[in-house]
Amino acid sequence: MKLKTWPLRAATPALAVLALTFTGSLAHAEEGMWMPQQLPQISKALKQAGLKLDPAKLSQLTEFPMGAVISLGGCTASFVSPQGLVVTNHHCAYGSIQYNSTPERDLLKKGFLAATLKDELPAAPGSRVLVTVDVRDVSAQVMDAATSALQGKARADAIEAKEKGLVAECEKDAGHRCRVARFYGSLVFQLIKQMEIRDVRLVHAPAQGVGLFGGDADNWMWPRHTGDYSFYRAYVGPDGKPADFSVDNKPYQPKHHLKLASSPLKEGDFVMVTGYPGGTDRHRLPTEVAFNFDWESPELVKAFGKQLELIKQETAGRREAEIKLADTVAGIGNYYKNLQGQLQSWQGSDILARKQADFDALKAWVNGDASRRAQYGAGLAEVERLLAERHAQGKREFLMDFGASTLLGTARTLYLQAQENLKPDAERKAGFQQRDQLRRKQGLEAMERRYDPQVDKRVAAYFLSRYLAQPADQLNPVLLQALGLKQGLDEAAVRARLDALYAGSQLADKTERLAWLGRDVEAFKSSKDLLIAAAVALYDNDRAREARDKELGGKIQRAYAETMKALIAFKASQGQAVYPDANGTLRVSFGKVAGREQGADGTAWTAFTTLRGIVAKHKGEGEFDAPAEQLAAIQARQFDKYGVKALDSVPVNFLATLDTTGGNSGSPVLNQKAELVGLLFDGTLDAVISDWDFNAKTTRSICLDARYMLWQMKVVDKAERLLKEMNAL
Amino acid sequence: MKLKTWPLRAATPALAVLALTFTGSLAHAEEGMWMPQQLPQISKALKQAGLKLDPAKLSQLTEFPMGAVISLGGCTASFVSPQGLVVTNHHCAYGSIQYNSTPERDLLKKGFLAATLKDELPAAPGSRVLVTVDVRDVSAQVMDAATSALQGKARADAIEAKEKGLVAECEKDAGHRCRVARFYGSLVFQLIKQMEIRDVRLVHAPAQGVGLFGGDADNWMWPRHTGDYSFYRAYVGPDGKPADFSVDNKPYQPKHHLKLASSPLKEGDFVMVTGYPGGTDRHRLPTEVAFNFDWESPELVKAFGKQLELIKQETAGRREAEIKLADTVAGIGNYYKNLQGQLQSWQGSDILARKQADFDALKAWVNGDASRRAQYGAGLAEVERLLAERHAQGKREFLMDFGASTLLGTARTLYLQAQENLKPDAERKAGFQQRDQLRRKQGLEAMERRYDPQVDKRVAAYFLSRYLAQPADQLNPVLLQALGLKQGLDEAAVRARLDALYAGSQLADKTERLAWLGRDVEAFKSSKDLLIAAAVALYDNDRAREARDKELGGKIQRAYAETMKALIAFKASQGQAVYPDANGTLRVSFGKVAGREQGADGTAWTAFTTLRGIVAKHKGEGEFDAPAEQLAAIQARQFDKYGVKALDSVPVNFLATLDTTGGNSGSPVLNQKAELVGLLFDGTLDAVISDWDFNAKTTRSICLDARYMLWQMKVVDKAERLLKEMNAL
Repeated sequence: MKLKTWPLRAATPALAVLALTFTGSLAHAEEGMWMPQQLPQISKALKQAGLKLDPAKLSQLTEFPMGAVISLGGCTASFVSPQGLVVTNHHCAYGSIQYNSTPERDLLKKGFLAATLKDELPAAPGSRVLVTVDVRDVSAQVMDAATSALQGKARADAIEAKEKGLVAECEKDAGHRCRVARFYGSLVFQLIKQMEIRDVRLVHAPAQGVGLFGGDADNWMWPRHTGDYSFYRAYVGPDGKPADFSVDNKPYQPKHHLKLASSPLKEGDFVMVTGYPGGTDRHRLPTEVAFNFDWESPELVKAFGKQLELIKQETAGRREAEIKLADTVAGIGNYYKNLQGQLQSWQGSDILARKQADFDALKAWVNGDASRRAQYGAGLAEVERLLAERHAQGKREFLMDFGASTLLGTARTLYLQAQENLKPDAERKAGFQQRDQLRRKQGLEAMERRYDPQVDKRVAAYFLSRYLAQPADQLNPVLLQALGLKQGLDEAAVRARLDALYAGSQLADKTERLAWLGRDVEAFKSSKDLLIAAAVALYDNDRAREARDKELGGKIQRAYAETMKALIAFKASQGQAVYPDANGTLRVSFGKVAGREQGADGTAWTAFTTLRGIVAKHKGEGEFDAPAEQLAAIQARQFDKYGVKALDSVPVNFLATLDTTGGNSGSPVLNQKAELVGLLFDGTLDAVISDWDFNAKTTRSICLDARYMLWQMKVVDKAERLLKEMNAL
Repeated sequence: MKLKTWPLRAATPALAVLALTFTGSLAHAEEGMWMPQQLPQISKALKQAGLKLDPAKLSQLTEFPMGAVISLGGCTASFVSPQGLVVTNHHCAYGSIQYNSTPERDLLKKGFLAATLKDELPAAPGSRVLVTVDVRDVSAQVMDAATSALQGKARADAIEAKEKGLVAECEKDAGHRCRVARFYGSLVFQLIKQMEIRDVRLVHAPAQGVGLFGGDADNWMWPRHTGDYSFYRAYVGPDGKPADFSVDNKPYQPKHHLKLASSPLKEGDFVMVTGYPGGTDRHRLPTEVAFNFDWESPELVKAFGKQLELIKQETAGRREAEIKLADTVAGIGNYYKNLQGQLQSWQGSDILARKQADFDALKAWVNGDASRRAQYGAGLAEVERLLAERHAQGKREFLMDFGASTLLGTARTLYLQAQENLKPDAERKAGFQQRDQLRRKQGLEAMERRYDPQVDKRVAAYFLSRYLAQPADQLNPVLLQALGLKQGLDEAAVRARLDALYAGSQLADKTERLAWLGRDVEAFKSSKDLLIAAAVALYDNDRAREARDKELGGKIQRAYAETMKALIAFKASQGQAVYPDANGTLRVSFGKVAGREQGADGTAWTAFTTLRGIVAKHKGEGEFDAPAEQLAAIQARQFDKYGVKALDSVPVNFLATLDTTGGNSGSPVLNQKAELVGLLFDGTLDAVISDWDFNAKTTRSICLDARYMLWQMKVVDKAERLLKEMNAL
């Protein structure tokens, strides 16, 4: 359930809403990823649902329990010991487990347990632990009078400049990472400040037969039996501040950490989840809904399916390549299945009709009053046309983007960096400033363990040849010239061309790749490296396309923000609050442990699965291959203190009415006293469309029961050191 | 769920119980396959459960509704029109569908719908419709003073002679078939008289993708989506009496037939099932329980698994052989899965301990009183030892029986018939009298469409070679000499021997096979046919083994019946009635439509499945291959009048708390007004052990919802003629 961001998807998601108070009761309490600041407003509902804590405490980000919840960038995690021990999902630590695996020392397969602190392994380059320390509304600063007066690219540039300025100011506090998050289609802006711990180490991961039990077959499915947990540790310098990896570093001592539940979780219990949901689309306009489901998602499903097939072919029989591509395959496969689930729910549904009716009602409300028409009419009138323009653009370049080779992409990024280096740091593009250099270097290093030329060329050749099959007037002549391609070339011909380009490039070599980070524009221009030369040839065209997108982006921002402002006002006139779509910022969802009336035809879902289900699913191979030691412990009914009498077993996973999405993976699931009862790790395929259209009856989150994790660690994997550290022995 | 009788299994099952009245309430109303005569005694419970009919009506076998329920021998069926239209399960008519199928006209695959009466096809030879017309207790006649005084084989022979006499007397009424059924381990005897309609024709069967949807994968499983129905028609002579097939015959007009339900069935509704359950083992003694689960069933599972594997290998690529073996494979596969399910439930269960405790309590009660000890003590003391002797015997000859070739078996039967023909008809062995000749002839004819020499030799060679691997002193020297085998021969050597034997025999030829029916003992003795010669050589030994088994059987009958008598008296002393184990006689079970709390781990079962599940399971091949016309109708939501709003679909199968077993297949499921709401066709794998140990919480019967059958017939298969006949248009 990791969120994969996709270039075609424009950022959307809010804060004026905070000023509103809820006038009605929460009919669908399960819906809503609340900003911590909103919680005091819904305190009545939270207490009715069973929360024993003062809801106001949850809005204090540096206090317990929020201070223990951290972001890994794409996933959520939490501190579970005073020594910086971090628990998250196995699939969130998968990249680091893979990064440390070789055919000879296959941690992916066999799992990993560091015997002592010294044995803990560096996580994959770029791994971070981010602790949110401050959130501030900066809407007025970003969108001041001057910016508001601008149009198109100038407006987009001005917003970006303001954001960069705020971030630079914020990051003067060393060891912190700042970002400006946009809410409600860039209507509202928040400056978020996070402490960035950059020495992260892998402490423990169960065997694949536990952590990934069920694999793709069970992904997004219930009933579920996945031990989706792993442990990291955050390290800081001897001075207690964030530092690069060093043997002298020591475990970070967080101000707060989560404690394990002191009473057994059962069906109907209050639970809440705190984490960093990546993105939802509940306020999207009808045009966007239609484009997504009628064109973009079906095309992505086709393309991902092909990509997975090609990777499988090219890595067959090469375990080393298979390990290199494992994380990529897991990520694509995950998104692929999610989109298929969404499309399945979309078929025959009335979603578009409802979205259209809602939007029509909004337009009728705005147009029914002269002052409202004056305030919102312009944006509302043009937003859909502008979005349609963006969609048309996306369609045209879809295959070209999909056919972009990793190695050529690296060359383009390196040359763009060299170009940006000519400017003062504050004026450089976001992502190319000084603050981005460490991450860039780590990314270039990590390629060593993720990049396989055979796979890269095969995928690029396939999609480029499909791109080239289009009419000549729809192709980018600059791209064709730079790569020596022409309209109508088949896959073999494109592949021959790529073989030549790759053979004439040193970028696959790590040292050479990193060396380019320090070279100037002239060195690029005079280089004989064929891919560097291609990047130079493409540069002006790349920038022109970027400028074109920005011009449209600026226009859309203005119209979209105005539309969202109208929506908030419209709803407020009906006494309703509009909660912001998820945007990777800290949120709280709450609900209860609950099964579901409707499972597969002829079945319902119960709230918990048990160890029995592992035995029932075990096949001794492939995705259902539980470790022999685990099966023996189950057979011997060694439930330890984790057995639940009503289940006659140890609970493995459970369902809860929690509103979550990708990015929430690894989020701690807390009980009424904010004690740890599990980890959120998945949703269900027939409800993934809830990202667009929430259905309280069918939407459930799938959570790892902490008792299963502790049972496996104690009875099977003998992880006493960590259990002791979590005070769980 | 067809009952396959197995030679090792001794007949058991009762009527003294009828004299008892129920003193307590029916705590587990779901348990019990009631004899129709018992129903007035439980009328209060039946009315509480929801029955709207007078329970006394259900005990009148020739009145409505019981008069409409018929036996097919192994399966149950019912009349559903005034023109003798019979509905039963697809898997019950499977043999007849297969019999009429060829690779060119593959009725198995495509289904069959007779356009007019003239197009209705003769069912497989031996097919019968049996209507029970009378049931009489004959215990006193069978077990009179003279028989009771006998021991061993003499006792067994006397019982058999009495039974044959009663049957002969009964069958003087032409067109009827009679049998003596034994209850409570041959303590109680009933003479059952049935009208035997022997011209049975196939009228309609849905395509395999409907009638067998889910195949072996779904057999014994829930959720289920099988359209397990087919139609026969009973034909009689122009005089209205049972007659052999003739174009002059006309549809039989039953006195009663079932009407379709006039109100929609829903969860919680009262349902009952009337039918012919084949056998249960709920009163088995601990010795038998242990032998069954610790030895016999595990051995059978191994042997059946091997047999299925060998048949698959030998028929691969030969569709004709595949069709010939289809019914055999379905039967073995069904029993194989059932036994595996029973063994799964047996693992780690406390069944044996409870059975032992019950038996110990019985013994304590008998031994606690001098008069009881005098009455039951002797039987109770020796019954387990005698059973152990039978079990030891069964173990010794297990592989020999499994290795018996079909063709050699035919030769042995033919020669035995010739020997029996020397006696007056009344003295011939049961099964070899005049009354058995038509069935014998039909059996010999049907071999033509069921027998494949390649499969027959392969299976026989495999099991015989395993038999021969045993120590020489455990082998039957007569068998070895007759077949030219010796200890230690491997499969290839046995196969070579079988090849020679088969090559030297004409029995595979239908005309030749049938000709032997008319030949005398001398003709057999002088025959050069190698298999006939082998049968002659084996004859004395076969009879000696038979006599040995009868000697033990007579002893067991005495001890077992006494034990059961003690059990009934013991229970009566506690105010409890002992319902008789199923024995192929007409019974009534009642319960309600209900899902189950416990499904696969993490799921529960709901009461109904729907058309949605067919689409979800459809794979377009193999066992999940729904017809395109059906899928199109589902897609178009053409639910006709069969749609149920709460399900937003047509119900396909449903679960009910009905106590049923093999033989109940095809039984009509009736509502509170005795209207037809479905057909019983299966149980669930995790509850098949209920044959031995009933568990009300987990045991459910799987029923076809009549609405699915009618929907498929009307909307997809356009079977207007039949629907009109059932008054269902």
